[in-house]
Amino acid sequence: MRFTFRCPVRWDDMDAFGHVNNVTFLTYMQEARTAMLFGGDAAEQIPDLIKGVVVARHEIDYRRPLEWRPAPIEVDVWTAIVKPSSFTLRYEIRDQLADDGVVLAEAMTVLVPFDLVAGRHRRVSAAERDFLSRYLD
Amino acid sequence: MRFTFRCPVRWDDMDAFGHVNNVTFLTYMQEARTAMLFGGDAAEQIPDLIKGVVVARHEIDYRRPLEWRPAPIEVDVWTAIVKPSSFTLRYEIRDQLADDGVVLAEAMTVLVPFDLVAGRHRRVSAAERDFLSRYLD
Amino acid sequence: MRFTFRCPVRWDDMDAFGHVNNVTFLTYMQEARTAMLFGGDAAEQIPDLIKGVVVARHEIDYRRPLEWRPAPIEVDVWTAIVKPSSFTLRYEIRDQLADDGVVLAEAMTVLVPFDLVAGRHRRVSAAERDFLSRYLD
Amino acid sequence: MRFTFRCPVRWDDMDAFGHVNNVTFLTYMQEARTAMLFGGDAAEQIPDLIKGVVVARHEIDYRRPLEWRPAPIEVDVWTAIVKPSSFTLRYEIRDQLADDGVVLAEAMTVLVPFDLVAGRHRRVSAAERDFLSRYLD
Repeated sequence: MRFTFRCPVRWDDMDAFGHVNNVTFLTYMQEARTAMLFGGDAAEQIPDLIKGVVVARHEIDYRRPLEWRPAPIEVDVWTAIVKPSSFTLRYEIRDQLADDGVVLAEAMTVLVPFDLVAGRHRRVSAAERDFLSRYLD
Repeated sequence: MRFTFRCPVRWDDMDAFGHVNNVTFLTYMQEARTAMLFGGDAAEQIPDLIKGVVVARHEIDYRRPLEWRPAPIEVDVWTAIVKPSSFTLRYEIRDQLADDGVVLAEAMTVLVPFDLVAGRHRRVSAAERDFLSRYLD
Repeated sequence: MRFTFRCPVRWDDMDAFGHVNNVTFLTYMQEARTAMLFGGDAAEQIPDLIKGVVVARHEIDYRRPLEWRPAPIEVDVWTAIVKPSSFTLRYEIRDQLADDGVVLAEAMTVLVPFDLVAGRHRRVSAAERDFLSRYLD
Repeated sequence: MRFTFRCPVRWDDMDAFGHVNNVTFLTYMQEARTAMLFGGDAAEQIPDLIKGVVVARHEIDYRRPLEWRPAPIEVDVWTAIVKPSSFTLRYEIRDQLADDGVVLAEAMTVLVPFDLVAGRHRRVSAAERDFLSRYLD
């Protein structure tokens, strides 16, 4: 099952080339990931993640340019791998207004739960493993 | 030869975890890349690139967290590959204040020259190839 | 009549104090203004404004802090004054989740239509005056 | 005496109109203010302010547009008023590369010291009053 997030495009997400800046796609990924891991069911089921989680790696491939428009874009997020101390999410960023739901970018992120108080990484909890497993695709 | 860019950290680069947000490291890469490819000698020697260049792919590995401080960080950029229609840059983002010039992140970007008027990709020019070859490391 | 815009809060709108940064409220104003002046009916009725409009002045008073949450906030925008060469919008930024729809900030912006091709200010058109007059409150 | 801050322009500070976005000028003000109040001498002399200070009001008048360039702009900051529970700073944002050091924007901010732990405003301390008085202009 994928988690689908409708992400509005802000006007100043565009740069001087008149397209949404490449860096902003990482912000869209962050918004979708945050909605999945910090909001909704997650707020009750895995409340420790919002207290600290660190990005270890990103990969992103850009397929098509995007311009501002009033309608949001769609970001799919799903779980690729859950390891003892990290997990990997994958993303598909789509323009659902285009006839064929054209893919704008594909990406992945490796995340590491982090204990902000102790100042060090921690293991993925059983509750987090269960939650993430629902989104294996 | 590497291109070294001193990049100031803006106070609001930090997020609610009190660290510079992972997305902002891509902004630092963009700043270093822009200074290398659009500013300095590049403004005269490869003036077409500022008219259009597209990011095709990013990879980034985060090594250490960063907090705001008045001193800039250092971003090294160099050329990894030049192909007929694209080129790849690599980056090392360092905290030069730390004793050992600790590496905060390592990254790479694939870039494609783009003709904004014609609305399509174009080949890397001879001048661009020469310019980029100076920064092979 | 007021134009009401539901503006999502992005996770990294928060700064190291754990609140949405003061600067980001101006982004929320820009989003609401852009939706009112560039999107919806405006795209057909006043198509010249998206080609160029310049901010001449902002005033903003902050009333309450805001933290990230999945639900959007509400930004009301309405017309305060239309002059021959500029117009003034007012804003109320509210947390509609709070019992009393608490006001987070109040603000105003003076805007000047701008001809990007000619590189100079231009007068408010009759169509723009009509459009803006609908939102006098 | 004014506090002068040299603020680099980031490439993506520009929006689709090819100018630095109006909101970003508030970021430049924040950078200058932060350097003045959190960095340098301030880090030792008024260490409590970085633990919490809230913006109560901004006013800004935009005079000239700004495009990206490798050279920083200059932001002057100085103290206008110190009251028991708030203080007001003024700013002049200049393009020092232009022949006449042209003013790009003029602005002011009302700030309120804030105790993040207690969750409420606090009075301006004697040390803060002394520090701010140095920058009366």
